[in-house]
Amino acid sequence: MWGFADTAFETDGNAIVLRSNRYENGGKTLDRFAPFVEQAVGIAFDPSDRHEPVTPFVPQPVQCDELIVMLSEVVGREHCTQEAQARLRHGHGHHLEEIYKVMYDKLDRVPDVVVYPETAEQVQGVLRVAERYHALVVPFGGGTAVTMALSCRGETRPVVALDLARMNRILWLDPESRVACIQAGAVGRSLEAQLRAAGYTLGHEPDSIEFSTLGGWVATNASGMKKNRYGNIEDIVLDVTVVTLDGVLSQACCVPRASHGIDVRKLIFGSEGMLGVIVEATVRVHQAPEVQFYGSLVFPTWQSGLSFMRQLSSWQSVPASVRLVDNLQFQFGRALKPGSASSLGATLQRFYVEKLKGIDVKQMVACTIVYEGYRSEQEALRSQVSALAKQYGGFSAGGRAGKDGYNLTFGIAYIRDFLLQYWTLGDSFETAVPWNRVNDVIAGVKAAVTRSHAEQGLRGWPFVTARISQVYQTGCCVYFYIGFHYKDARDPLQAFKEIEHEARVSIVENGGALSHHHGIGKLRAPYLAQIKSPLAIDWVNRITAALDPQSVLASGNQGVPGRK
Amino acid sequence: MWGFADTAFETDGNAIVLRSNRYENGGKTLDRFAPFVEQAVGIAFDPSDRHEPVTPFVPQPVQCDELIVMLSEVVGREHCTQEAQARLRHGHGHHLEEIYKVMYDKLDRVPDVVVYPETAEQVQGVLRVAERYHALVVPFGGGTAVTMALSCRGETRPVVALDLARMNRILWLDPESRVACIQAGAVGRSLEAQLRAAGYTLGHEPDSIEFSTLGGWVATNASGMKKNRYGNIEDIVLDVTVVTLDGVLSQACCVPRASHGIDVRKLIFGSEGMLGVIVEATVRVHQAPEVQFYGSLVFPTWQSGLSFMRQLSSWQSVPASVRLVDNLQFQFGRALKPGSASSLGATLQRFYVEKLKGIDVKQMVACTIVYEGYRSEQEALRSQVSALAKQYGGFSAGGRAGKDGYNLTFGIAYIRDFLLQYWTLGDSFETAVPWNRVNDVIAGVKAAVTRSHAEQGLRGWPFVTARISQVYQTGCCVYFYIGFHYKDARDPLQAFKEIEHEARVSIVENGGALSHHHGIGKLRAPYLAQIKSPLAIDWVNRITAALDPQSVLASGNQGVPGRK
Repeated sequence: MWGFADTAFETDGNAIVLRSNRYENGGKTLDRFAPFVEQAVGIAFDPSDRHEPVTPFVPQPVQCDELIVMLSEVVGREHCTQEAQARLRHGHGHHLEEIYKVMYDKLDRVPDVVVYPETAEQVQGVLRVAERYHALVVPFGGGTAVTMALSCRGETRPVVALDLARMNRILWLDPESRVACIQAGAVGRSLEAQLRAAGYTLGHEPDSIEFSTLGGWVATNASGMKKNRYGNIEDIVLDVTVVTLDGVLSQACCVPRASHGIDVRKLIFGSEGMLGVIVEATVRVHQAPEVQFYGSLVFPTWQSGLSFMRQLSSWQSVPASVRLVDNLQFQFGRALKPGSASSLGATLQRFYVEKLKGIDVKQMVACTIVYEGYRSEQEALRSQVSALAKQYGGFSAGGRAGKDGYNLTFGIAYIRDFLLQYWTLGDSFETAVPWNRVNDVIAGVKAAVTRSHAEQGLRGWPFVTARISQVYQTGCCVYFYIGFHYKDARDPLQAFKEIEHEARVSIVENGGALSHHHGIGKLRAPYLAQIKSPLAIDWVNRITAALDPQSVLASGNQGVPGRK
Repeated sequence: MWGFADTAFETDGNAIVLRSNRYENGGKTLDRFAPFVEQAVGIAFDPSDRHEPVTPFVPQPVQCDELIVMLSEVVGREHCTQEAQARLRHGHGHHLEEIYKVMYDKLDRVPDVVVYPETAEQVQGVLRVAERYHALVVPFGGGTAVTMALSCRGETRPVVALDLARMNRILWLDPESRVACIQAGAVGRSLEAQLRAAGYTLGHEPDSIEFSTLGGWVATNASGMKKNRYGNIEDIVLDVTVVTLDGVLSQACCVPRASHGIDVRKLIFGSEGMLGVIVEATVRVHQAPEVQFYGSLVFPTWQSGLSFMRQLSSWQSVPASVRLVDNLQFQFGRALKPGSASSLGATLQRFYVEKLKGIDVKQMVACTIVYEGYRSEQEALRSQVSALAKQYGGFSAGGRAGKDGYNLTFGIAYIRDFLLQYWTLGDSFETAVPWNRVNDVIAGVKAAVTRSHAEQGLRGWPFVTARISQVYQTGCCVYFYIGFHYKDARDPLQAFKEIEHEARVSIVENGGALSHHHGIGKLRAPYLAQIKSPLAIDWVNRITAALDPQSVLASGNQGVPGRK
């Protein structure tokens, strides 16, 4: 399950409580949450009716004693394990299917051995041993993939999980050039803390930052919430060092930008473990921002908010993060606040919005904003944003609401795991869309989810909500949450997969991407042929065959075939 | 020679005159230019002592009649030519070595035939015919490459120049998503004019924009002068369509950003014609800017200007173009202005700078700035830039000086061709450098050029000047001009190549890139092993072998071997 052991949503048998010493609202009762869930999926939420998880099943490893002896020689015996929980943890990411199987079913296949190398030489040693023993190597960072990229289902070879946890140091920091060289196993949270202690920031803030790693960001071509200020991972990383069977991919000079001919390092972004093991990345860093502040805006309708976002995206400078949630997601956020809907504060707020601003709370949408940078620059930006919002009928709802909205992201996976235990199945997925297809894609997903839910005779109704989580000059990233009550479903997981499939088909038909930043893995591989021309797919196969002829890293991601 | 037929620098037997109906200062006498050249290279400039160019030599084509019959069938007889001037024009780019050989020596090898296909199908037909007849195909855009990428010296196979001039249309423009699909042969100048007529801009403005093409920008991984506002070519291009022998590389959805696994399209950037023929690109466009204005700043020393540039690069928003020229280049710019050094205006300017501002004109450096975008945003930016400049001892020198400085770029190739005829050999080259090595790289180049010039016993002294032409958070692009008087050199071209080589070696030793945006071609291929690890080079060779097994496109760029 997701997250820190000290944090979880729970019930007190009555209402929902957030148990946490770590997050705001920890220890508080969330009175509005259960009613919201009821309304969202159309079935009464019963806090006493828990779907008890099974004791996790761990399949037996395949016989590979000699392999393990050799791997132990490379990394040291204490860094090579067949311990069941370690194997299980390395056998999945955080796609709903994987979590559901761990909690209520079983994973048929997990790695046979987990190794923790400490150096690039050890990584290369692991690859060589794996090649010799015809094993598959699956590089492992934070384990937060949501594309089944870590899955080794169906694999008949011995499977080695190569965990980079011990390669997590900042190797150097050049303050004048604002460049740092960092090992790939560094976890976002601690990496950022170390940089902050030195007065710097990376600024890369994916939803998973508390657990995901630098190497994983490169391997999945990640995007952070503050990309408007700091860039996506391909903007942040100046250079990568990749260990392969045949040697090390690296570069002698580290410059902001170059034209050095065919740049094979670009293939590493989104390679999902298939071309080599990323061991280091050289990244640009920024002086820790002089100021950080939040903002939020309310717009009367989705269309007005969308128009604002599109116009804002044409500016030279856009706040670090700007997100627009639809009405349902706005209500979702409110339902997670302590206190009841009839409290004085809530009533006053509603009065202000409805009576004074003339906005229908059933139609309104909200935008959360993060500003980071130099004070004068960011304050000027805030004034410009306010002026623009006014043109679209928007008004400020304050920094506090912006902060809450922004931070909601970090709670989503906890909520998913919690609701799963109360017969409510849900997950998120994303896409990228040109501006002229945003409404088509959203309407398409809502219709597809509703249709599939009905066709399968599931009870209640499905929860489906969208937000724009990133803006670009030419379009945006749209993020969906879907969910439904599954207690009476014959095969809940199959029902979910069917709904997710219909949503994805609809996205592609409406001109959306298979993924904005999660990647392809095994989950989305079947749809690649609808996006890429046959030649583009053929090139990937030819290139992986040329670079990994023994298929040591061919775990089936992106449909790349193993050894022939 | 470079440029429009109606434009050239000339002498009236006495002073230097710019003949042009196109550019500012056309028809004016440039009194200060000849004295500047004298001072720059240490030899008297004699406007009556012209080095008369030879009648261009065009080598005989190799026998390939059947090939030509087949190519004519594909593209139509009128679009397939062996005409000598066409073959010559397609046999070189604009590196000094190539221009010198055309003017004073000879090119040993040029294409045997030039074809002008009109469709992607015709492009594929050309490739198929070439494969069947074991010919080399060299895609050709604007012919402005400065890396010998278009050279086919030493090639024994028949050589087909594939000119994309007829594939130059804007296919569609989506105003809502701000995306346009444009054929690769579109020339920057006319492409931008067409977009402007529709109210949009691409914003990509390389020095060569008047002649270079969209396809060429992708093939060389180009950078435009206004990249701070509009991005480099890899930021601008959302998608490319590439024709290969085996089919077409393309994508069904066109989104601002995606995580679609290994993205082979990234290999096309900087591919220099070796992986396929780029026939279309989908690009982001912007509404034509509400305002454009120039600015310029003067700083007392190089170091103060450099510190300003570095600090500015850490801002979220940086003016579209910011360039810093050293003192010598500043003087160069002034020497190109009509009027004499003792004119009233010039004297007053000097008085203002020296007496009122206390700046030594022999030390001062200048920064030229272009602002483009929304008025309120850009005016706020200008105030912030002024405030920052003050912190480093800088002050404004007005918009007019900024405009002149910016536009000087477009004249450089004309000046190069002019001076060549008056015994002065010169060229430019660039690199990218992290901030902490900028001064090392510049000092290294100046020392290397001076040393090599002296060692070769050349007369006078070398001209060598640097500017920062692009800034990034982590470093910048440094652009050099070098030149020397060559009348008494035994082998002027060899002397130049020796100097250029020494400069390049010094750049690499000091941590600079082989190129920021010109590319590798044949010129810089010998240095690749100093930049990339052996595996990185091996990967390029394996990949090109896998994707172009018959070496139809292997012209020797980047040292990629042809068919074994």
